[in-house]
Amino acid sequence: MNIKKEQIVTPWQVSGEIDYEKLISQFGTTKLTEKLKKDLENKTKSKKLHLFFRRNFIYSHRDFNKIVENIENNNFYIYTGRGPSGKMHIGHLISFITAKWFQDEFGCNVYIMLSDDEKYLISKKLNLEEINKISIQNFEEIAAIGFDPDKTFFFKNTEYISKMYKTALKFAKRTNLSTAKAIFGFNNETNLGHIFYTMIQIVPTTFERDKYCLIPAGIDQDPYWRIQRDISEKLNFKKVTAIHNKLLSPIQGINGKMSSSNENSAIFLDDDEKTIKNKINKYAFSGGKPTLEEHRKYGGIPEIDVCYNWLNILFEEEDNKINEIYKNYKTGKLTSGELKKILIEKIILFIKKHKENKEKNKKDLNKYMYSGKLAKQMWEK
Amino acid sequence: MNIKKEQIVTPWQVSGEIDYEKLISQFGTTKLTEKLKKDLENKTKSKKLHLFFRRNFIYSHRDFNKIVENIENNNFYIYTGRGPSGKMHIGHLISFITAKWFQDEFGCNVYIMLSDDEKYLISKKLNLEEINKISIQNFEEIAAIGFDPDKTFFFKNTEYISKMYKTALKFAKRTNLSTAKAIFGFNNETNLGHIFYTMIQIVPTTFERDKYCLIPAGIDQDPYWRIQRDISEKLNFKKVTAIHNKLLSPIQGINGKMSSSNENSAIFLDDDEKTIKNKINKYAFSGGKPTLEEHRKYGGIPEIDVCYNWLNILFEEEDNKINEIYKNYKTGKLTSGELKKILIEKIILFIKKHKENKEKNKKDLNKYMYSGKLAKQMWEK
Repeated sequence: MNIKKEQIVTPWQVSGEIDYEKLISQFGTTKLTEKLKKDLENKTKSKKLHLFFRRNFIYSHRDFNKIVENIENNNFYIYTGRGPSGKMHIGHLISFITAKWFQDEFGCNVYIMLSDDEKYLISKKLNLEEINKISIQNFEEIAAIGFDPDKTFFFKNTEYISKMYKTALKFAKRTNLSTAKAIFGFNNETNLGHIFYTMIQIVPTTFERDKYCLIPAGIDQDPYWRIQRDISEKLNFKKVTAIHNKLLSPIQGINGKMSSSNENSAIFLDDDEKTIKNKINKYAFSGGKPTLEEHRKYGGIPEIDVCYNWLNILFEEEDNKINEIYKNYKTGKLTSGELKKILIEKIILFIKKHKENKEKNKKDLNKYMYSGKLAKQMWEK
Repeated sequence: MNIKKEQIVTPWQVSGEIDYEKLISQFGTTKLTEKLKKDLENKTKSKKLHLFFRRNFIYSHRDFNKIVENIENNNFYIYTGRGPSGKMHIGHLISFITAKWFQDEFGCNVYIMLSDDEKYLISKKLNLEEINKISIQNFEEIAAIGFDPDKTFFFKNTEYISKMYKTALKFAKRTNLSTAKAIFGFNNETNLGHIFYTMIQIVPTTFERDKYCLIPAGIDQDPYWRIQRDISEKLNFKKVTAIHNKLLSPIQGINGKMSSSNENSAIFLDDDEKTIKNKINKYAFSGGKPTLEEHRKYGGIPEIDVCYNWLNILFEEEDNKINEIYKNYKTGKLTSGELKKILIEKIILFIKKHKENKEKNKKDLNKYMYSGKLAKQMWEK
């Protein structure tokens, strides 16, 4: 008998084996077609799609065709964000890397929310002062991505609430408890702040009224956008558009979502070389065979191998190299140990570069938050 | 058979015959004793209690003894407010008149909230721009009361949210849906903004952490203070204290609460003389007898007469005069028509003076909101 653990995917919980096809039908989103990706590629400056598109890591969308159709008219902006609950791991960078790619290719504005209110409201132990410290640390990590300081606005909700509250009220007036319960799974134990926060997360989808807002985010965040899309046009705002990436798996297996709560399931942005080596060697779920002899004879299963998957979606940029790795692993030519070594080197390089960028870009944080061209506009609104 | 309409008293609905004794036990508040009133009187500058205390219009409290005990140490401040849903009537002034009396007697700070967010969230037709216009008009009426411009702060929630949001989050984190449903009667149709608003209304009870906050308000507002008193000490804030006035009745009868939704049930602050005369003469519920002959013979019933009640709690300052009116009406010496005439003259004078004060005090509105000593402190926080 084969009992699958029930799939639960909400903004606050991801558990069970995730069936991404099923999520598309469950959430009512649209699968990203090769045709739409080709259209996007044709309009890029670099004439090349980002890895996330090429490897089907970004795989689902809402109205992304509207963005692609008029992309040359600078008809959109990007909105994404992070809940500052602790230090960041590599999985937390996915949306920011995607945002940066769009900004480089098309020159669009990027808005990044730090939902310090949400994290305070759902945390069992952190107070607002602790969350504030984490927020600044997180902003420094995100600044490392290297956004354009005049086209990017970083904001914390408890600080930027003054400019968001009225719009939140407009959505809140039109969202009743029964809708919120159905979409977010709230119950009698849910606190009043958490319930209202869902409206705050919607507000930046209205920051540029004349343009489309495109959200690159994990598909687990989709419930928010469903409410926005139900209400926005009644308020003369455009329906938000979105592209959904799959979730970066934990080290222990290709299912689920990398989580900070299990230190050994994630590679953190401040991990040192030794820690990285140790985590991958010790915990990375392998698709290889138990003995070298069997592996050489029957080959490994790249599809269920965490190292292969991480290389595929995040660390091996070259299409021919990843194809070679796939083939060699599948035929048993490449061992699990060798595959781990390739991944470890890539991660170490990635983290090293990230740390350098973090130091280099710290000076821009004030621009992103207050003094850059876009940030200034947003505070003067 | 005598069927009483069921008594319903919430911040948004007052219906049925109101039994004020029953409300005390229903809400769990304390009856104001003659002893406590005497203690208060002894500490006043004027050595005289305000009409509202003398005539038992303010009749219930929570921890008011804590205020009285240390009142000479300036140990408290006043917080009250108004929901700006339309033009104001005389019933809307009760809390402000009370606040002004405390400020005159004891020099305390006064904070006045205009809950424009709440009124937007529960209004079926008004948008935020319309509510904003009403807010300014309402502030002008309240400014007519003549508060000390350096000890009084007027604020609108949509504007002052920047300074209130964090504290609202602290209370919201500790209030779950089941508590909010039980205390406010929320259900699945309630919108998310209205639910969260209850937390905003609590915030000013924490404005001066070292002092007691005293709220003069209708007893219908008490549910908010119950939540505050349950949570505040966990957050190192003092429990809020309150004095509760009865509700000013509509013109049509001494039960219920004067309401703006029925134009003829209320005396509005901009009513002209003719309108006032007409409303009282035509609609004021009388405790007199059907014919003059019967009235002279049996006398009237002041207790159920709206004119007598309004004179008693709002318009006839002199104790000996109101006693005379009571006696003469009860014995039939004073007719219903004569009683109406006395009230009409008092109201006309009251409204005339109010309009003059409104013009005179308009210049202070900016001080109350932004530039007065207290307002400045509150914005610089």
